[in-house]
Amino acid sequence: MAVYTEVTDEALSEFLARYEIGPLVSYRGIAEGVENSNYALRTGQGDFILTLYEKRVNTADLPWFLGLMEHLAANGLSCPLPVRARDGRNLNPLAGKIAAITTFLPGVWPRRVLQEHCEPLGAALARLHLAGEGFMPARRNDLGPQAWGSLLGKCTGADAVQPGLGQELTGWLERIVSAWPRDLPAGHIHADLFPDNVFFLDGAISGLIDFYFACTDLYAYDLAICLNAWCFERDFSFNITKSRALLRGYTGQRALLPAECRALPVLAQGAAMRFLLTRLYDWLNTPEGALVVRKDPMDYVRRLRFHLAVESEAAYGL
Amino acid sequence: MAVYTEVTDEALSEFLARYEIGPLVSYRGIAEGVENSNYALRTGQGDFILTLYEKRVNTADLPWFLGLMEHLAANGLSCPLPVRARDGRNLNPLAGKIAAITTFLPGVWPRRVLQEHCEPLGAALARLHLAGEGFMPARRNDLGPQAWGSLLGKCTGADAVQPGLGQELTGWLERIVSAWPRDLPAGHIHADLFPDNVFFLDGAISGLIDFYFACTDLYAYDLAICLNAWCFERDFSFNITKSRALLRGYTGQRALLPAECRALPVLAQGAAMRFLLTRLYDWLNTPEGALVVRKDPMDYVRRLRFHLAVESEAAYGL
Repeated sequence: MAVYTEVTDEALSEFLARYEIGPLVSYRGIAEGVENSNYALRTGQGDFILTLYEKRVNTADLPWFLGLMEHLAANGLSCPLPVRARDGRNLNPLAGKIAAITTFLPGVWPRRVLQEHCEPLGAALARLHLAGEGFMPARRNDLGPQAWGSLLGKCTGADAVQPGLGQELTGWLERIVSAWPRDLPAGHIHADLFPDNVFFLDGAISGLIDFYFACTDLYAYDLAICLNAWCFERDFSFNITKSRALLRGYTGQRALLPAECRALPVLAQGAAMRFLLTRLYDWLNTPEGALVVRKDPMDYVRRLRFHLAVESEAAYGL
Repeated sequence: MAVYTEVTDEALSEFLARYEIGPLVSYRGIAEGVENSNYALRTGQGDFILTLYEKRVNTADLPWFLGLMEHLAANGLSCPLPVRARDGRNLNPLAGKIAAITTFLPGVWPRRVLQEHCEPLGAALARLHLAGEGFMPARRNDLGPQAWGSLLGKCTGADAVQPGLGQELTGWLERIVSAWPRDLPAGHIHADLFPDNVFFLDGAISGLIDFYFACTDLYAYDLAICLNAWCFERDFSFNITKSRALLRGYTGQRALLPAECRALPVLAQGAAMRFLLTRLYDWLNTPEGALVVRKDPMDYVRRLRFHLAVESEAAYGL
C-alpha cells in the first residue's frame, strides 16, 4: 500500500547521475511500509533502497535521521547506510519530494514472533543504544509524554470506539504522566522497533531499519516499547518467557540501573499509551476507503490494562 | 497496489524447501501489477520473482503459460524462466494460492515511450513469435473477436460513460467482426505487450514479462496491439514515426505477408476494441474506493476512431 509517489525512469536516471553508484538497472515499488514511498533499486553497483519522504515526515528532521543512521553504521550497527551523492549530499530532490538512497540489508522480518527472536532483539536494541553514543545533536521525542495530552484532546469521538474510552484514557494518562521517571539514562532511541523493522537471517539479526521515529529519550523507554511490540500474544496475553529473553539479551549488552528496572511498569504503560493514542487518532481521522490499513487502537488498550495491573518489574521477568 | 496475498516468512521458507535455490534471504511485496501478487525474492542463489496467482487468472491455464515461457526462454527469448522444484513442478501451493518462482530480469520499463523504443520493441515481438514456434499446445484467445459481443452485452450502462456509446460500439463491433481476416499466419502471441511489460537496459530490450494473456492467435494481431499500446501520444494523436520504427523492427525479424499488411487496419480496430471493452467492463463493475486504479475506456474509443478512419496500411507507415 505504500508507493504514493510514482517515479519515472527518466527522472530516476537523472537523479542517479548525482551519485557514484552506477547506472539504473531496475527499480520496483515496494508494497510494504505506510509512511514513505520505497523502491527496491538496482544500479551497476548492486542493490539499494530508494526512499521518497511523504508528508508525515518532517523534512527538517531528515538530516538528523540520516546522520544518526550514518553514526550507528559507523559504530558497527547493521542498519541502512545513506549513500552520499558526488557533492556529499545524502538528501536530494526527486519527483517533487526529498529522496535518499540507502544500502540494501538482507534478511526477513518475522511475521510471527517466536521466543528465539527476543534475546537477539534485546541485544540489538542495547547495541543500538551504545552505538548512538557520541552522536551529539539531540532530537526531542515529538510523541513523548508531553505530547500525549494534546493528542488525546484531538481524539474527540473516542467513545464511539468504546463507550467511556475517552474518560478512561484521561484518567490513565494523568496517572502515567505524574509517575513518569526523571533522571534515567537517556540517549538516542529507535522508538518504533516493531517486528517489521527487524530483519533476521539464519536466526540472527541482520539489520534494523526505519529510523524515522528515532529521537533522544530514555533508553529504558525504548525497551518498554519493545516489551509491548514483541511480548504479547495474539490474544493479548503477556508472554513472560519472551520478555525474559528480551531483557536477558538487552542486559547482556548494557546493564540496567535499579531505577530503570523499577520504572519499567510505568514506561511500559507510557509506551502502550503512545501507540494507543496515535492509532486512535488515525482510526478516528482516516477516511473510509483510504489506502492505508487502520490498526485497531483497542489492541493497545488491552496491553495498557496489563501494564496498569502490574505491581513491579518482576512481572516482566526481572 | 498489488500484493493481495500476504505471505509469512515461515510459509515462504517451507515453500522454498521444495526448490534447490537456497534459503530465504529477503522478500518484499512489489507494488506494481494488478492481476497477481508479486514479490521480489532473494535466496542463497540470487534474485527471483515470486508470483501468487489471484482470481483473475484461470489456474487451469497456468501450466500452458509457464510451458510457453520455458519454451521461449529455451529458444533464446529473454523472459522470466519458471524455476522447477526438486520434484519437477513449477507450480506449487503457497498461502492458499498457486505460486511460481521465475528468474529475475534486469531492466526498466519506459514510463514515456520514445521513438527509439519502438524499433527494438518491434524486433522483440517478432522474435517472440518465432521463438514460440514448436510449442505445440494451443490456447484459444479468450478475449478474441468471438468474445467481444458477449463482453459488450455485459457492459450495460455504457451510455453513462458517454451518451450513445453502447450503440456506437455495437455498430463498430459488427463492422470489425465481419471484416475480421482469416487464414493469416498464426501462432503464440503475447497479446498484452504494453510498455510496462517490456524492460530496457542501455537502450536495448532486456526482457519481456507477463505472459498471462498469451494465447494462440494471428501474429499480426499482436502487432496491432503494439500499435495501439506504443504509437499514440498522450493527446491520442497517432505517431507514424513510432509506428514505422515498430514495423521496421518487426519486419527485420519476420517478414509480413501482403495479406497481413492489408489486414492491419481492421486488426488495429479489433485490438482497440478488445482493450476498450475490458476497460469499459472494469469501469462499470469496479466498486468506488477499490484498490485497483480504473483505466478510462474512452482512451480506447479515441484510438478506435483513428483506426476506423484509416484507409489502408499506409496510415501505419507500411
